[in-house]
Amino acid sequence: MTAEKKTSVMKLWGGRFSGRTDDLVEAFTQSVSFDQILWWHDIQGSIAHAGMLRDVGVLSNEDEKAIISGLEAIAEAIKDGQFEWSESLEDVHMNIEAALTEKIGEAGKRLHTARSRNDQVATDVRLYLKDEIDLICMQLSALQEVIVSIAENEAATIMPGFTHLQTAQPVTFGHHMMAWYEMLNRDYERFGECRARTDVMPLGAAALAGTSFPIDRTITAKRLGFSAIATNSMDAVADRDFIVEFAATSAMLMSHLSRFSEELIMWTSSQFAFVELSDAFCTGSSIMPQKKNPDVAELVRGKTARVTGHLQALLVLMKGQPLTFNRDNQEDKEALFDTVHTVKTCLEVYTRMLRSLTPLRNNLRDAAGKGFSTATDLADYLVRKGMPFREAHEIVGKAVRHCVQTNQNLSTLTLEVMQELSTKIEADVYEILTPEGSVNARDHLGGTAPNQVRNAAQTARQNLKNRET
Amino acid sequence: MTAEKKTSVMKLWGGRFSGRTDDLVEAFTQSVSFDQILWWHDIQGSIAHAGMLRDVGVLSNEDEKAIISGLEAIAEAIKDGQFEWSESLEDVHMNIEAALTEKIGEAGKRLHTARSRNDQVATDVRLYLKDEIDLICMQLSALQEVIVSIAENEAATIMPGFTHLQTAQPVTFGHHMMAWYEMLNRDYERFGECRARTDVMPLGAAALAGTSFPIDRTITAKRLGFSAIATNSMDAVADRDFIVEFAATSAMLMSHLSRFSEELIMWTSSQFAFVELSDAFCTGSSIMPQKKNPDVAELVRGKTARVTGHLQALLVLMKGQPLTFNRDNQEDKEALFDTVHTVKTCLEVYTRMLRSLTPLRNNLRDAAGKGFSTATDLADYLVRKGMPFREAHEIVGKAVRHCVQTNQNLSTLTLEVMQELSTKIEADVYEILTPEGSVNARDHLGGTAPNQVRNAAQTARQNLKNRET
Amino acid sequence: MTAEKKTSVMKLWGGRFSGRTDDLVEAFTQSVSFDQILWWHDIQGSIAHAGMLRDVGVLSNEDEKAIISGLEAIAEAIKDGQFEWSESLEDVHMNIEAALTEKIGEAGKRLHTARSRNDQVATDVRLYLKDEIDLICMQLSALQEVIVSIAENEAATIMPGFTHLQTAQPVTFGHHMMAWYEMLNRDYERFGECRARTDVMPLGAAALAGTSFPIDRTITAKRLGFSAIATNSMDAVADRDFIVEFAATSAMLMSHLSRFSEELIMWTSSQFAFVELSDAFCTGSSIMPQKKNPDVAELVRGKTARVTGHLQALLVLMKGQPLTFNRDNQEDKEALFDTVHTVKTCLEVYTRMLRSLTPLRNNLRDAAGKGFSTATDLADYLVRKGMPFREAHEIVGKAVRHCVQTNQNLSTLTLEVMQELSTKIEADVYEILTPEGSVNARDHLGGTAPNQVRNAAQTARQNLKNRET
Amino acid sequence: MTAEKKTSVMKLWGGRFSGRTDDLVEAFTQSVSFDQILWWHDIQGSIAHAGMLRDVGVLSNEDEKAIISGLEAIAEAIKDGQFEWSESLEDVHMNIEAALTEKIGEAGKRLHTARSRNDQVATDVRLYLKDEIDLICMQLSALQEVIVSIAENEAATIMPGFTHLQTAQPVTFGHHMMAWYEMLNRDYERFGECRARTDVMPLGAAALAGTSFPIDRTITAKRLGFSAIATNSMDAVADRDFIVEFAATSAMLMSHLSRFSEELIMWTSSQFAFVELSDAFCTGSSIMPQKKNPDVAELVRGKTARVTGHLQALLVLMKGQPLTFNRDNQEDKEALFDTVHTVKTCLEVYTRMLRSLTPLRNNLRDAAGKGFSTATDLADYLVRKGMPFREAHEIVGKAVRHCVQTNQNLSTLTLEVMQELSTKIEADVYEILTPEGSVNARDHLGGTAPNQVRNAAQTARQNLKNRET
Repeated sequence: MTAEKKTSVMKLWGGRFSGRTDDLVEAFTQSVSFDQILWWHDIQGSIAHAGMLRDVGVLSNEDEKAIISGLEAIAEAIKDGQFEWSESLEDVHMNIEAALTEKIGEAGKRLHTARSRNDQVATDVRLYLKDEIDLICMQLSALQEVIVSIAENEAATIMPGFTHLQTAQPVTFGHHMMAWYEMLNRDYERFGECRARTDVMPLGAAALAGTSFPIDRTITAKRLGFSAIATNSMDAVADRDFIVEFAATSAMLMSHLSRFSEELIMWTSSQFAFVELSDAFCTGSSIMPQKKNPDVAELVRGKTARVTGHLQALLVLMKGQPLTFNRDNQEDKEALFDTVHTVKTCLEVYTRMLRSLTPLRNNLRDAAGKGFSTATDLADYLVRKGMPFREAHEIVGKAVRHCVQTNQNLSTLTLEVMQELSTKIEADVYEILTPEGSVNARDHLGGTAPNQVRNAAQTARQNLKNRET
Repeated sequence: MTAEKKTSVMKLWGGRFSGRTDDLVEAFTQSVSFDQILWWHDIQGSIAHAGMLRDVGVLSNEDEKAIISGLEAIAEAIKDGQFEWSESLEDVHMNIEAALTEKIGEAGKRLHTARSRNDQVATDVRLYLKDEIDLICMQLSALQEVIVSIAENEAATIMPGFTHLQTAQPVTFGHHMMAWYEMLNRDYERFGECRARTDVMPLGAAALAGTSFPIDRTITAKRLGFSAIATNSMDAVADRDFIVEFAATSAMLMSHLSRFSEELIMWTSSQFAFVELSDAFCTGSSIMPQKKNPDVAELVRGKTARVTGHLQALLVLMKGQPLTFNRDNQEDKEALFDTVHTVKTCLEVYTRMLRSLTPLRNNLRDAAGKGFSTATDLADYLVRKGMPFREAHEIVGKAVRHCVQTNQNLSTLTLEVMQELSTKIEADVYEILTPEGSVNARDHLGGTAPNQVRNAAQTARQNLKNRET
Repeated sequence: MTAEKKTSVMKLWGGRFSGRTDDLVEAFTQSVSFDQILWWHDIQGSIAHAGMLRDVGVLSNEDEKAIISGLEAIAEAIKDGQFEWSESLEDVHMNIEAALTEKIGEAGKRLHTARSRNDQVATDVRLYLKDEIDLICMQLSALQEVIVSIAENEAATIMPGFTHLQTAQPVTFGHHMMAWYEMLNRDYERFGECRARTDVMPLGAAALAGTSFPIDRTITAKRLGFSAIATNSMDAVADRDFIVEFAATSAMLMSHLSRFSEELIMWTSSQFAFVELSDAFCTGSSIMPQKKNPDVAELVRGKTARVTGHLQALLVLMKGQPLTFNRDNQEDKEALFDTVHTVKTCLEVYTRMLRSLTPLRNNLRDAAGKGFSTATDLADYLVRKGMPFREAHEIVGKAVRHCVQTNQNLSTLTLEVMQELSTKIEADVYEILTPEGSVNARDHLGGTAPNQVRNAAQTARQNLKNRET
Repeated sequence: MTAEKKTSVMKLWGGRFSGRTDDLVEAFTQSVSFDQILWWHDIQGSIAHAGMLRDVGVLSNEDEKAIISGLEAIAEAIKDGQFEWSESLEDVHMNIEAALTEKIGEAGKRLHTARSRNDQVATDVRLYLKDEIDLICMQLSALQEVIVSIAENEAATIMPGFTHLQTAQPVTFGHHMMAWYEMLNRDYERFGECRARTDVMPLGAAALAGTSFPIDRTITAKRLGFSAIATNSMDAVADRDFIVEFAATSAMLMSHLSRFSEELIMWTSSQFAFVELSDAFCTGSSIMPQKKNPDVAELVRGKTARVTGHLQALLVLMKGQPLTFNRDNQEDKEALFDTVHTVKTCLEVYTRMLRSLTPLRNNLRDAAGKGFSTATDLADYLVRKGMPFREAHEIVGKAVRHCVQTNQNLSTLTLEVMQELSTKIEADVYEILTPEGSVNARDHLGGTAPNQVRNAAQTARQNLKNRET
């Protein structure tokens, strides 16, 4: 770099780092710019902690009252945007505690008795995440409901089913929808199980070893609605499993949404033209006025990358850390918060987008009729007539090659030609060579027959209803 | 590169690619070199499938019998290393089916009726993984048992507890062990839940849409010991969630083992000298004859990387795949198999290594006495005498600085000096300034007091016992 | 798990771990099962080391001769598959050294003078990787040559260009091919730079600090063909950057191949039908006889996951390792070797597959004519007539909407209708509304005009030719 | 979840999603909240584009003047914080263009002639990244200078060198520092090469195919200071290699910083006590007043995770994208910007922290004298007396075991005892058994002798000086 260039770069960007070391380190180590999102749960945690200390006689009634009313006033101020966050007070905990002491004096200084920021932050994050998982589960249910509705409406809509992106066999649009429903069902289960492991209270672990005060953790747990109490203080402050597990669960969900998105993007291309999305979920082009781009689906597919990256970051973060708390762990928060935000917005936008989805039934039916999609049905027909499957498979292969050479479809072959391939073929073969015949024949648990799709949708509705209680 | 160099490189390595395209593609696409590990489960799946086909009348009794005895003979041959695997037959399924047909003739060709390799491979892998998870859970229990034993023996062994790798407060060695126990407990839970989602039978989904034969999937599920049946055929063949979830669960377990390992590596350094491992788990050096390297712990820490990498690979693999089966999915296997193998060997070697661990009690006790580890106890003492925590915190800070300047320890300060810092301090302060006093004071649920450690160990023993039934 | 089930699982799988601790640890820590791939380079390194020791007088002429002839005999044995590798000798280095000492006696014991396995293995891997990168670069050139050939043949073949998978503007097939060429060109550059950083000799660093023998590292470097010598012994044995960088470079290459593959998979679907691949690169289906699946492209897309996973594993591996060598590093090898193997086979199979690619020109041309692909040309036309771009953009948007409503194409609108939209439109507008007009108009450096494509291909040919010298 | 709980969760969090679909989609798809960081480079790009359009006659002199003065006024407004960014205008490009048109009217609408947001954003990001890489390279140089200074001061400071975290051989502190220097040197090289590939202008590619206007891309490239021009328009808008490569390069740098950090964290523990860091780079504890935690080092180690995560996210993002631009790519920006920010702040804080580092020479020397660190020297001594290395290795092993049993050190063994082990040992052996003797003996290129460290530091100083020109 020339000196001139160097000066120019310095002028432009260098200024950022000209501050004093103290300022730089403060900016580097602070977390309040992102952990303030925990304010509400931090205050709930402090109120419960103060209540417990009062119950066991460590805090006086007056001190507890002062602390509660002080914290409530701070909560109001934060809600109204009147609270002044300070980076020199490092994090959400110190900001709130300092404001409390300023407001109520000595009692504020007693609040941190028998606890440490190590167990405090772990408690806050768990309270926060429990609420977020509840919301995500509600959103999953909402998305699944939309999918079930489409499945009901399109239980008999024929479309091509793909393997290797090659037309394989006809399926119904509703059946395809219910595949997405199933994926989300597993996500719902996993989030629920992750929530159960999040629902464990670290408070009382103090810095790492517990405390010499006569605390009663069952009281705090009850006040905060925790179902369980962490039974080892060192693990309680060192553990971030619940965050990693949440990220892994989210990455799997996003991987499902990325698969939906890939399909929606292909299905809205002019080559497929299987569905239409409402304009609200597409955007135009700055240079090509005719474009209607499936941006929302593309962005969701892209955001899969972000969540997968966060999962990896969290695993790298924890790798090789000795017990107990290390400052590295501060880095868990932005990854977690962004994962929560991404998952929630993707679910919301997806639910609305799917409500606007219109299957183009004619195109779907036309596509299902091509590509020899009923070849398997012909093979099955021959097997039912007594031929071993592998032989039937070979004969149908010959039939398909004949069709390709003569530019025909299986259902347009004459019975004569058919019977040259196998004398077992009779006139009833044509019934099974249509897409409708094909899907109707798959009438067993899990099969694509409209009948089965309606059953699956009904079961799904009941499942979704059961969640509400 | 010079021509000479080029020739030399070509000569050395180039030969590998001089084969015919057919050979190259065959080698590129085959999976039998790694999926033959599934042979036993593939055969079980086929026997159950044949049985069901017989039950519903698609297969004759004679055909079923021929198939079963043929498959059993093949199983014997494989077990005895007498089976000849062929890459040109692509995968474990085709190898076995071809051998069956060669052995029993036409009946063999009927076996593949009403199924596809798509549902077959998914079934095989789920059967395999269920068994492997069972073994992993047994190994986890064994490792936890060793840990509980150490915890019992060392419930009162004092050692320094660390935060930020700085001496923080005294803890007991047993308490530290039980932190590891807790981590593994969560792993055990997660593997169990992952197993439940693995325990779902895809068979009957055929290629993607179900089959036109009158199959009864409940029969097959019962024969194979599956607790549930996949309720959507497209999802059944497209889904690899259970593999991703297993990898994520394994990555979390390995992340725990990497934390153990980091500690063992530091603890066996001459700077820490906290524990000794038996020679069997260490190795020497080719150049430094005095070295006793904790290689096993280092390798386990390193293998965390491998499993994390597999998880990432699986997430990348699934990202953006349209339904249903795509050939990409063949790539799930090596990642899965290597994860299973790595987890199992690491658990086994860890269990044995921990059995050989000797805590160096004197060193541990000495280290716990340094670094002002009871400073918090002094602060708590002042709080109990009525001082607000934040003030107590400040005064103890002053006491520590005084000690540093005068090269003393808190417990060696005279009462006079103490009382200059705060008149609240009395003679009873010395009781709480020893590591023993400190740990005994933390006598609440989750605390480090020997009493609590023994309770936790007892509960753990009961928990481990309950698993056996 | 029930006791019965437990027994059954134990019986099946448990046997693997019933060995003695010594055997288990040996199997766990050995690397010879995978690092024997380094044998040739290990022997070259030893020969050069012995030669240097002789040159500086540490080894006698006789000892050097014995060592060389011994190693050459071992090399012959390995090549012929006659060498017996032993896991109890841990790694490739100890296996070869032990065989040497057995063969030539005392002189063999002198070989390890002034070196350690730490610098030995780093040297071996670098020698190995240099050769592999040379081969990869040759393969990249071969693949690029095929691409350039297609580009030359299809310089004027019209196809639709996509953004957001929506038809955007016509491009030429040759132009699209040259986009792939460009990606691979960056890969070639990166591999070359990575090679330069691999081409640095660690030998002489010994365990970590250098050696007390009067070694001359320039001699060894010259004998081994290293361009540079590692200038810090601690870094020399601790560094694995060159492996991480190789993996990152490979992951970028695979990311390119995954993009090619995604396109080939879509292009061979019946919805697109843009190209045909020869049967040799596709496979059939076990249940659907009509399928022609693009398995090779799918597998390459899938293998991107594997390489990305290896990169992640290597980064996790190195994270937080204190200097210098730790046993964790043994885990670098399988990730590296598998990355090398995957990249090489994917490049080879891709080169052959592209040679078999046939663009379906009619389909491509037809698709390019749809989707209002020349709308931008109309907007540009209006701008050339003096209208600001943003206004032109709006007017064309109206024209497209009119076409959609009346089921027309831009080129089928009458001049009258056109002029209602803007009076600036004249009869010459029809020239620019054809795909041919559109691509020909983009006749500037980097544009899609056939003329430019031919120029780009010619430059590329020259570039490829220049590499050979 | 109970209905009550559900209501409470809804009340708290649900509000966020109650907006209209249009608002939701707008918020979901907008990028201006993060891409406004590109404003300066976006404006430079537009000024150069307008200038080129004027030069080739597409834009009038008046229009160009109006555009430039309009853009300059906008730049002033943004700099002064007076510019109002609007999410409904999506991104930085549309915000600025809209403001321009509002300010100067029709000329503003002409600016987007012959370009698209696809080439515009690629150009902006490349301009931005070139400047950021320049700054990062300056920071790397500054950090390396500090390291070289320490190395010069501590060229003869003895410390233990570790392998497997076990004391291996004595090294000098300066030598250890120069290992870090070497790692950063490779990073500097890689950033430079990445910069060269970033320094390629996409502008002129328009949406994907080039433009029908008679543009001259060499003019724009010269005005913007680009060294090269993208030679394929489709690649130009689809490519994000330079971002992935930057992330990979950054991940490798962070992996180095994580290794430094691991060492600093251990070295500041009371078990090691090798160095001291100034208080400004450590923090205290909320509960343990005596703690001095190396937070900055811990956070840097933690931030390695973040950057590794971003790299993975970017690779996942690009995987399987068909050409050319897809909306997924919008997700590249936050990962890139955060990587740039993290790398810059970590380098800055590290440089300052290392300036405050004080090696505790006595402790370092004491530690180097333990652990039989000169055992290798004894083996080498025996080899020089004519014993084969492997035999010498065995004898020294016996000597060490004898020392361990009798609680001695190698240098305290009597000559008599020594000679029992080998008669080759003479009185001169004691010279090589001190750490000083050991390091001085390693006096070859790359060795740890103080002499070599000073040479290496001098070469490094010259290298750093050469960068400035």
